[in-house]
Parts: sequence; C-alpha cells; structure tokens
Amino acid sequence: MTPINESIDTYLQTNLERYIAETVRLCAQPSISARGEGVRECADLVAELFTQHGLQVQKFETPGNPVIVGRLSGRSPRTLLFYNHYDVQPPEPLEEWTTPPFEPTIRDGMLFARGVGDDKGELTARLAAMDAVRAAHSGELPCGVVYVAEGEEEVGSHNIAAFVREHIDLLKCNGAVWEGGGVDEEGGTGTTLGLRGVLNVELEVQLMTMDAHSGGAHIFPSSVWRLIRALVSIKDEHERILIPGFYDQVKPPTELDLQLLDAQPDHEARMREMLGIREFVNGLTGKDLGRAVFNPTCNIQGFTAGYQGPGSKTIVPARASAKVDFRLVPDQDPVDILAKLRRHLDSQGFTDVTVTKKGAMWPFKASADDPFIAMAKRIGEELYQQPYRINPLGGGSSPEYAFAGPLGNIPIIDAGVGYFNGRGHAPDENIRLADFLQGSQYLARILNEFASLG
Amino acid sequence: MTPINESIDTYLQTNLERYIAETVRLCAQPSISARGEGVRECADLVAELFTQHGLQVQKFETPGNPVIVGRLSGRSPRTLLFYNHYDVQPPEPLEEWTTPPFEPTIRDGMLFARGVGDDKGELTARLAAMDAVRAAHSGELPCGVVYVAEGEEEVGSHNIAAFVREHIDLLKCNGAVWEGGGVDEEGGTGTTLGLRGVLNVELEVQLMTMDAHSGGAHIFPSSVWRLIRALVSIKDEHERILIPGFYDQVKPPTELDLQLLDAQPDHEARMREMLGIREFVNGLTGKDLGRAVFNPTCNIQGFTAGYQGPGSKTIVPARASAKVDFRLVPDQDPVDILAKLRRHLDSQGFTDVTVTKKGAMWPFKASADDPFIAMAKRIGEELYQQPYRINPLGGGSSPEYAFAGPLGNIPIIDAGVGYFNGRGHAPDENIRLADFLQGSQYLARILNEFASLG
Repeated sequence: MTPINESIDTYLQTNLERYIAETVRLCAQPSISARGEGVRECADLVAELFTQHGLQVQKFETPGNPVIVGRLSGRSPRTLLFYNHYDVQPPEPLEEWTTPPFEPTIRDGMLFARGVGDDKGELTARLAAMDAVRAAHSGELPCGVVYVAEGEEEVGSHNIAAFVREHIDLLKCNGAVWEGGGVDEEGGTGTTLGLRGVLNVELEVQLMTMDAHSGGAHIFPSSVWRLIRALVSIKDEHERILIPGFYDQVKPPTELDLQLLDAQPDHEARMREMLGIREFVNGLTGKDLGRAVFNPTCNIQGFTAGYQGPGSKTIVPARASAKVDFRLVPDQDPVDILAKLRRHLDSQGFTDVTVTKKGAMWPFKASADDPFIAMAKRIGEELYQQPYRINPLGGGSSPEYAFAGPLGNIPIIDAGVGYFNGRGHAPDENIRLADFLQGSQYLARILNEFASLG
Repeated sequence: MTPINESIDTYLQTNLERYIAETVRLCAQPSISARGEGVRECADLVAELFTQHGLQVQKFETPGNPVIVGRLSGRSPRTLLFYNHYDVQPPEPLEEWTTPPFEPTIRDGMLFARGVGDDKGELTARLAAMDAVRAAHSGELPCGVVYVAEGEEEVGSHNIAAFVREHIDLLKCNGAVWEGGGVDEEGGTGTTLGLRGVLNVELEVQLMTMDAHSGGAHIFPSSVWRLIRALVSIKDEHERILIPGFYDQVKPPTELDLQLLDAQPDHEARMREMLGIREFVNGLTGKDLGRAVFNPTCNIQGFTAGYQGPGSKTIVPARASAKVDFRLVPDQDPVDILAKLRRHLDSQGFTDVTVTKKGAMWPFKASADDPFIAMAKRIGEELYQQPYRINPLGGGSSPEYAFAGPLGNIPIIDAGVGYFNGRGHAPDENIRLADFLQGSQYLARILNEFASLG
C-alpha cells in the first residue's frame, strides 16, 4: 500500500465515529421532498456541514428546493464533481420500522435511518474522503472538488437540468461521482455506465360530466373502456410499442454492452423469490433478463376510475385516468416521444384522450473505455478484492444526463457506501458501518488519483 | 267519480297532514344499509307503523337486515302484495344538502329528506291508501294485503330471494305493487314491465407479491396490463360481448316491446345536457337509444391499480382489479354467464385472472297484456289525465324476479309518489306533497278494485 493510502486509511479509521455522528445528525433532520417536510432546514444543515469541512458554499434557490454547492480548488486544475441529494423518500409505513425513521440508531454494526443509504450517508462519506485526502497532502487537495446537493431527487429532479445549464462555469469539472453504487452480493463494487430516460404522462378520459347509473350502460359512453382501448393501441401483447417512430432513435446494445450485461450477477432466483414472480415479461429467463434493459418500456404506474370501495356501485364512471411511464434507451428523446404519442392517439381517433406531461429525463450512457472508468475499476478491485462489475445500462432514470452533456461529455462513475440489502425507499433503510468506512476509502483513493488522469 | 273513490279522496285529503307527519318520522330515522347506520332501529319503526295501521306484523331476521312483513285479510281471498324497502342510500356529500338529510323539511310544497322518495314516502302512501280503502268499506278491505319491507335494497337485496323462497305461503298473492313509479314530465304515470338482471364480479390480477421499481418494467410482469388485456378479450369496440354463448338465452324484443319503447318520452336532449354527453354508445341517437336497453352490457364500475396520488410513482403495481357488471336481458341467467366468463378467460389463457362474484339478479319481464296492467292503465289515465306509459324493460335491476316467479308468475306494476326530478340517491332528495296525495289516491283505487280481477 502506498504511504498516502496508508495515511488515508488511518485517518478514516481514527475519525470514523465523528463521521458517523455527522451522518446521524444529517439523518435526524427530516427532508421529505414529496411533502416539503423539513427540506429547507436540511438544505441549511448541508450548507453548514459543507462550510465546516472548509468548502466555499453557495445556496441557490430554484423553482423547487434549494441546491447547495460547495467548492474547493486543488493543486491541479482538474476538478471532480460529487452529485448528491439531501431529500429522502417518505418513511411510511411507519409501523414497519424497528426504530423511528428520523431517530438514527446503530444495531449490529448497521446504522438505521430514512435516507442513510439514499443519500445522506454517501454525502458524509464524501466529505470524510476529502478530509482524509487533504490530511494526507498537508491540507491541500491534489485536484479541485465541486459538491452539488439537490433537494428534489426523490420527486423527479425537475429543476436540476436548468440549474446546471445556468451554472456551467461554477460546475466545470472533468468527471463526476454519482450517488449510489456500493457493495454487491460478492463483496465487490462496480458502476453503471448509463441510465434510461423516462417520460411520465397522465392519460385521461372524461366523456360525461358526472357518473351515471350503470343501468344505462347500453347508452352512456364509458371513459374507462375508452381509456383501456387507447392504452391497448399503444402496446401489443408482446411488449412492442405501437407508436409510429417510437424505436427510430434506439441504439441497439454493442457487443461489449452484451458482454458486460452477461457478466452481471444473476438475480433471477432472488427476484422470483422476493417478488413472488412466476413468469417474467415475455417469458424471459437467464441472460435475456439482463439484456432486456435495452428494451424501452411502457408501464402503467396507476389506473384510477370509478368506484374503488368495498362491494359494488352501480355507476358508469365519468372519468378515468392512468399514470404511464415510458423508460427510454439511448438515444430516445422524451420530447420527441411525447409528440409521437399525441400523434398516434390522434391518428387512432383518440382525440378525446388528454395527455399531460408529468416529467421527463433523457437517457445517458458513458463510454466503457474512458480512463476514469478504468481507474475506478483498478482501485475498486484492489480495495474490494473482487471483480469490478460494469453495468452498461441501468433500468431506472436519474439526472446524470443533465450534468454529463452540458459539462462537456464528462465521464461519470458510481461510488457509494450502500449494499445490496440496504432497503432504500423501504422501512428499516440502513447502511453497514464497515461499508461506510470502505466506501470512504474507495472515494478517497479516487479523489487522490483523479488529478493524475489529466 | 264513484262514491267509493269520492270517499277515498276525501279521506286522504282530510288526513294528508297526518301521513306527511308519519313520513317525516320515518325519514328522520337514518337507515343507511351501506354502513349499517340506524338500520335495525328503522326496521323496528316500520314494524311499529305497520302495527299502528292494523296489520299483523312479523319481523324476520336474515343473514343481513330484518325483513318486516305486515298482513291483513280482506273480503276476497285475492291478495295484493306491496314491496318496499326501509333502507336508504348514504346521504353524502352532506354539504350539497340545503337542509340536513335526516331532518325532513317542507319547502315550496316539497318534502326534502334522504329516502323520502326512495322509498319511505312510498311506504307511508301505501299505508294511507289502505286506511282510505278500509274507511270507505266500513273497516274491511275488499282484498287481502301483504306489505313486505326489506332493509338491503340499496346494497343489492342479497337476502330477499332466499327469504321469499322460504316464506311462499306467507307471501302468497295474486299481484304486486313494486316500489318506484310516480309522475313523468307530462304529469302522467306508467309502469315498467320488467328489469334487466345483473351479474356483479370483481376481476383481479396479482402477478407479484409487492410493487416493484418501474425501472424494471422490461422484466417485471404487469398486473395492470394483464387485467387490461383480459378486459379487452371480453368486449369488442362495438360493445359486442365476446364470451362464447353469452347471447344464447337472449330473447329479442317483440314488435309490441318496440312499439312501447318508441312511445316512451324522448330523454336524449335532457341526458346530453345533464351528463354532458357528446356521443352515446355506438353513436346511437333517437329511438335507437330507447331500444338499446335490450342489449346486455359489460360495464366497468371501477378500476384500481397502483399509485393514484398526485405526481408520479416509479412502480410496476403488484395488483390490479376491476369491478365489472353485466346487465342481463330476459332470459339470461347470471349463474350461467358467470360460468361462461370463467371458461372464456381460461380458454384465452387468462387463468391468472381471478373472478369473484359480488352479486347477481335475474332479469324479469311481465306480460304486457295482463289484466292487472290493463287495470292500472285505466285507473292511471283516468286519475292523471295523461297517457299511461308502459316501458317494456328498464335498464336497471331489482329483486322483482325474486317475487314474481316463486309466487306463481304474478304480475307486478309500479305505482309511486315520486316524480322525474326527485333526486333519488342524490342530495336534496324530495317528493312533492301533491304527488304524495295523488299517488295515494292511485294506490287506493288499485287496492279497491284489485278483488274484481279474480
């Protein structure tokens, strides 16, 4: 081990309790963006933490929640950006928590709290890493850092793309570390090269001004049936989306993508058990399950119509609506898909189906052979003593695209403190203290070496 | 006018206030079967009223709410049965009532209260009619009467069919007066010869044990899409039901049925305005709207799946369900249709769609040329001075079938105290006091002459 890494590890080991205490303090502050609870207080707390760690801090108001930016220059002009968010998911159902979600508690080497893995523990680990690297270099960082903490990740990051575009100079960097990552079932780490985009829409039909008696169903137009017919026109039974031009911009996976996908851990049995799944979409099994992430999807998040209580109610409902999300693969564009969806519905005669855009993210995919990825792989395998897994495309969506392109096609990696059973978004969310330490070491090594890539 | 009818009218006019007071008392007692509120108290109040009017009263427990039966024999062995129900719809939304639903109030010659038209005012009018006929005949009725008041009509009359089958001797009669009827827009009255049956089912799909992240929609099976595919397999875009054998027992309307339908008042413009309808089912207009009641229907009362709050939630829902009602025409059988629905779903591969029966009623249709109908027509036209309308088939469903067949194919007529704008099931439900008087006169004349049909 190099003397610098030894110094980093000693520093982090010695100061671990202090960083855990800082994590506890941050997690004790609710910041539920879905209902605005504690969000502004948490933004201020993040700004205070950044200041305490020696960053130059700016708080930016947005149409939603504040964005906190902390910066510090280093010996090299190269700069590494850390993306985090200080908002958390709602903690409900509360009765399923062993200890209250905003009273962080250590049990069996784990720290339990809402947001501890997603994403507050990661934020403090990154501050710990910076402190350790500075200490190892007599107080000066080898490269510059920019910490960005937004407050709307759990509700769709609606304002971050505009924020980045308006603050390109402030955020200028040569690479970024995203939230997430952490330890897989084999004890190793890895990264995801990209994520799918998403178009969230609400489809709505209202053919009457109020519900009518179902004894008149032979004459009263049904908004529910109408919406169902519209939905069926969008996707066939084999998951093929029928909107003309929907697949025009789809880039198929490369040979390398497929190799990387095939090398991912096999979660089939675990998913079957965890979710009680008897058959996956289109009967997929084995490696085809992994490869299917390159298929864009049309999912119904929710469907609302008419009477939903116990028993029956003799009505033809006046209104029906469905929340639909399209997950988009590179290089599909949610704005283009939205226009094509509208055109498709119109051409099929569904002019009575309204489409309301609820949110959009673009797909993003970094290059597998970027030197930053290679460096993360080398450091990750050395530290975790396990193969580094590169997932070419994650199924979800995040605002990576909002940073990567505008900041000059920077490479982005994941590097976190979570693990495969961290119960993100669920009751008893937790991190393992050992992962926090190892994750901090990993982050510090990356930060320490980042200047050398330039 | 005959001396008997003169005596009847004088009696009813003189005692009107007393019967309105009785109606007020009955309506002041909540009896919301949907949530059991006040139902048993109301049953006891009905039994008390029956006793006060000189009926021999029996209270029968059922698996649901009690059935109250009041009987009195007459000079002739012929007997007329009156069907009523003492339960009412929930009064919500309360804020839309001008005066509270269970504080009956007279305004502008109308009595406002939940249940006053449906069906408590009709019950008291029938007691008034009996009193008037007895008074005109020195205390003895010309025919026997059986009053049946059940307490579950507003929740599907689940126990009345079994009750009738178990008490055939007690309920023996030669004809029945149903609830409903009253005054149409032209000031006349009429009857409906029959009603459609209904099969209420809940279709449910659950392909996962819990909701999963919609970033996995390319592999996670969607219960919502699955349910939608199953529904689409049941009915085509032109309202044709695709279940094999569904139409086997359908009896098409006769030439007389069509004539009677064509003679019904034209509600097209009113329905368009009231419900904001631009286009009826299958583009129907004019007389075809009336005739369509002979088409059985498959209606979706409600559809429940996934997230229904504001914004989006990134889930593939684990479960989806739909409340579906099939309105059935003579001689379709809901038990047969349920079996055919299950077979159809299985044959289409939808073995993963569960079907739960929530209720069933059989269709019923009386003969248009029954002497009882002819008598009601003659009396109705004489009293109301307007053509008597005979509707061969109503779109809704009621337990008429549960009485008519088991009691020996008795004829059934409507004769009520309501009117076209009585706001049944809605806030500010009301009857006009003048209709109450006229309806009582009509009922009394029918009761007075019923013996003569034998």
